[in-house]
Amino acid sequence: MELGDSTALLTDQYELTMLQAALKSGTADRRAVFEVFARQLPAGRRYGVVAGTGRLLDAIDAFTFDTPALDFLTSRGVVDEPTAEWLEKFRFNGDIWGYAEGDCYFPESPILAVEGTFAEAVLLETVVLSILNHDCAIASAASRMAQAAQGRPLIEMGSRRTHEMAAVAAARAAYIAGFATTSNLEAGRRYSVPTAGTSAHAFTLLHDSERHAFQAQLASLGEGTTLLVDTYDVERAVRTAVEIAGPSLGAVRIDSGDLGLTARRVRDQLDSLGAHGTRVVVTGDLDEYGIAALAAAPVDGYGVGTSLVTGSGAPTASLVYKLVARADGPGKNAPMRPVAKRSTGKPTRGGRKSALRRLDAHGTAYAEVITTAVPEPGPRDRVLQVPLVRGGEVVGRESLDRARERHVRSMRELPPTALQLSKGAPAVPTEFVDGGPRLL
Amino acid sequence: MELGDSTALLTDQYELTMLQAALKSGTADRRAVFEVFARQLPAGRRYGVVAGTGRLLDAIDAFTFDTPALDFLTSRGVVDEPTAEWLEKFRFNGDIWGYAEGDCYFPESPILAVEGTFAEAVLLETVVLSILNHDCAIASAASRMAQAAQGRPLIEMGSRRTHEMAAVAAARAAYIAGFATTSNLEAGRRYSVPTAGTSAHAFTLLHDSERHAFQAQLASLGEGTTLLVDTYDVERAVRTAVEIAGPSLGAVRIDSGDLGLTARRVRDQLDSLGAHGTRVVVTGDLDEYGIAALAAAPVDGYGVGTSLVTGSGAPTASLVYKLVARADGPGKNAPMRPVAKRSTGKPTRGGRKSALRRLDAHGTAYAEVITTAVPEPGPRDRVLQVPLVRGGEVVGRESLDRARERHVRSMRELPPTALQLSKGAPAVPTEFVDGGPRLL
Repeated sequence: MELGDSTALLTDQYELTMLQAALKSGTADRRAVFEVFARQLPAGRRYGVVAGTGRLLDAIDAFTFDTPALDFLTSRGVVDEPTAEWLEKFRFNGDIWGYAEGDCYFPESPILAVEGTFAEAVLLETVVLSILNHDCAIASAASRMAQAAQGRPLIEMGSRRTHEMAAVAAARAAYIAGFATTSNLEAGRRYSVPTAGTSAHAFTLLHDSERHAFQAQLASLGEGTTLLVDTYDVERAVRTAVEIAGPSLGAVRIDSGDLGLTARRVRDQLDSLGAHGTRVVVTGDLDEYGIAALAAAPVDGYGVGTSLVTGSGAPTASLVYKLVARADGPGKNAPMRPVAKRSTGKPTRGGRKSALRRLDAHGTAYAEVITTAVPEPGPRDRVLQVPLVRGGEVVGRESLDRARERHVRSMRELPPTALQLSKGAPAVPTEFVDGGPRLL
Repeated sequence: MELGDSTALLTDQYELTMLQAALKSGTADRRAVFEVFARQLPAGRRYGVVAGTGRLLDAIDAFTFDTPALDFLTSRGVVDEPTAEWLEKFRFNGDIWGYAEGDCYFPESPILAVEGTFAEAVLLETVVLSILNHDCAIASAASRMAQAAQGRPLIEMGSRRTHEMAAVAAARAAYIAGFATTSNLEAGRRYSVPTAGTSAHAFTLLHDSERHAFQAQLASLGEGTTLLVDTYDVERAVRTAVEIAGPSLGAVRIDSGDLGLTARRVRDQLDSLGAHGTRVVVTGDLDEYGIAALAAAPVDGYGVGTSLVTGSGAPTASLVYKLVARADGPGKNAPMRPVAKRSTGKPTRGGRKSALRRLDAHGTAYAEVITTAVPEPGPRDRVLQVPLVRGGEVVGRESLDRARERHVRSMRELPPTALQLSKGAPAVPTEFVDGGPRLL
C-alpha cells in the first residue's frame, strides 16, 4: 500500500461495530487511553526492539474513509447510515506518544499510548497492532543477528519468504536493528535502505559454462562484484573466479554445505591465489545461532533470509492494545478513571502509565520502571516516551538513520546478559511503582 | 498495494543485475523454465495447500516498470541505461501453469512453472515466491484447523498479529482452506470474503457497567449479536446477557480461561435460562490442537488469530523457484536442455516436470507422480497442472469460491492419515518417474 492510499479498511470489523454501538449509546465521545504492550517477550528472549513507528505515523495520516470504503461498509451492512456519515468526516485528532523507534523494550513496557475519544482511539487498534507486531518482531530478531555478527555486515534477503509487502517492512525493520543492506528494491525506493545483490545459481546454469557466467557477470558488474561459487564445485569455481577477475575480485558467495568449513577452505584458496582482499560472504538458512557459530570462521558478511522475515521463531511480537483509562462522561475535561479487565487468564493493569529506564553509575540499565503515578525521573533515569502525534498532527516523524542510531545507543545501555542468545529472563526487569491512581 | 499499482520493485536486486548481465552476454533471450516447489513440507506436516494463485496473477499483470521505478533503479546504479530501456518496455509474455488454487501438494510437487525467456522469467522470481510462500503457509495451517473443527465454523481474526497487508492475504487464504469468515474488512472489500465481528473488552470497559455495555450493543446490533462475556465474571455476564437480550440472543463469546470447561458451564447456564439457541463461540490462542481438544465441548464456533496468520509454527512454505531447463541459444525453437545445481546440500532435479495424482478404485490418492517424461495419465490419474498464463495473457483467473470448493474435493481424495494432526510423513508419497530427458 502506497502512502496516500487509505489504510482505514485494514481494520477488524468489530472496531466499527463498537463505534456504531458507542455512537448510539452516547459513550463514543468519552475520552479514552489505550496502551500497547507485550505481556511477555517471546520465550527466552532478553529484550524487544521497537520498530514500525514511522510506518505507523504514515498509516494514521492515511486513515480516512473514502467513498468506495463507505459504500462497502454500508452495502454489506457493517455500519448504518449515521455511522457512515460519522466515518466520512473522520480524522484522528487525538494524541499519541510512545517509545522512540529503535529503542529496546521489555515485558509490560508501554511502547505506545493513544489518547482521544473512545471512537477515534478504538478505530486505530487493528492497524496499530498489525504494524507494530510485525515490525517489532522482525527488528527484535534482526538485533540478535546483528549482535551475533559482531560488526560483520548483514544482508537482508528474505523477501521471497514472506508476504510481498511485509518484505518491504521487514527490510526497513532489519535496517533499524543493524542490518547493512537489503535485497528488496522497494525498501530502497520507499525508505532509502541500501540495497545489494548480484546473482543466483540460475545465472550460472543459464550459461554454457560457469566460466561464461562469471565472465558475463564481471563484464556487467565489474570486478568488485560477488561471484556465487557453489553451483557445481566450489574449489574449481574459486579458481576460475580469480583467474578471470584477478586478485581484486570483490567477493565470493557460498550458499550451501558446511559454511564454516567451506569458508575456511575458500579463504585459504583465495589467499594462495593472492586474492587477499576478496571477501567471503555466506548465505543459506542462517539465523542468529548460525551466525554466532561462524564467529571464528573467515567470513566477511552474512546474508539472512527466512529466519529474519519470520522473526526467528517469533513471527509476531504479541503486542496488545488495551483500554486502560476512560472518562465517565463526554468532553475534554471529564474526569478519567483507570479500567481493567478482571477475568481469569489475561488480566490487565488499569491507568495511564509512564516509563523510565533506570541506569546505574556506569550507564547500564537495571530496571524498567512503569508507573501510574506522575513520574519523577532521577538524574540517571531515561524517560522513554516521546510525543508522536499531538491533536492529530504527526510530530514524531524522523529519519530511519536516527532510529538506527538510537538502537545502537539503546543496546549499549543493556547489561551483558542482553547479548546472550540462550533462552533466559529479560535483561532488564520490569518494576511497577504504584503511585495510586494518577490524576489523569 | 492496490491492484494496478506496480509490483515490479517487490523484487530482489539480483534479479535485475542478472538481467543486465544476461542482456550484455547475449543469454537473456534463451528460453527458460523455472519451477516452484517445496523440498519438504514443514516438519511433520501431512500435506500443503496451494494458495495465492489469484493474487499472483494480479501481481504479474501489474509487473511493469513505471518512471519512478526506473528513475530509482538508474539513479542508484542498480541497472544501466540499456537495461532501463529494456525494462521500460517489459511485460511478461511467457507461459505459466501450475496446480490450481486450493489443491493439495506434497514434497517436490511442481506447483508452478514459468516458461519464457530467461530475462522475463527470472524477473518474476521474487514476487512469485513472496506470494506463494505466504499464502500457501497460511492456507496449509488453516486447512488443518478446518479439519480439526469438524464442520464448526471458524472465524479468522489474526489481522492484528501480522503485517497489515499480509493480514488481507491471510484472510483470503484461510477462506480458501475452509474458514467461514474473517474480521478483516479489506479482505471483504477486495476479495468478498464474508466478514464478522461485534465487540471487544474495551467496549464493556467503556461503559459504566457490563449491563450498560450489553444494552448498547443490543440496541445497535440486535439480539442476533454475539456478546463477550468474560470481561469480569462469566456467570454473571451470561445471566445479564440473557436477561437483557432474551433467549434468542445470537451468541456469547469466551476469550480467556479454560475454554472447554467454561464453554460447558456457559452452555448449561444458557440452557437453564432457556437460551437453547444461543451459540457459544470461543477465542483466545487457539490453534489446530486447541480446536481438536474442544471437539467434545459444546462449542459452536472458533475464532483463530495468531496461529493462523503465523502458519501455526510454519510461517513460510519454503517454496523455491529453480531453473530446470533452458535453451542453448536464442529463439523460440532452440533446443532446450535440463539443468540442475550439483553442489552439496541442496541439489535440484533438472528438466520440466509434469505431475499426476494417482487414485485407487475408491478415489483415494496413493501417489504424487512427478515425471520429466511426457505424462501418460491412466483413467484414475488426476492431471494436476492447469494453464494460468498463455503468451502473457492471464487465462487462469477464477472466483475464490471455486478455489474453496476445489480444496474440499482435494481433501476428500487424501487418505485418512492426512487428517492426523500428529507429526508424520506426507499423506501421499512423491514418486519420480524418470522418463529420460523429455523432448522440451
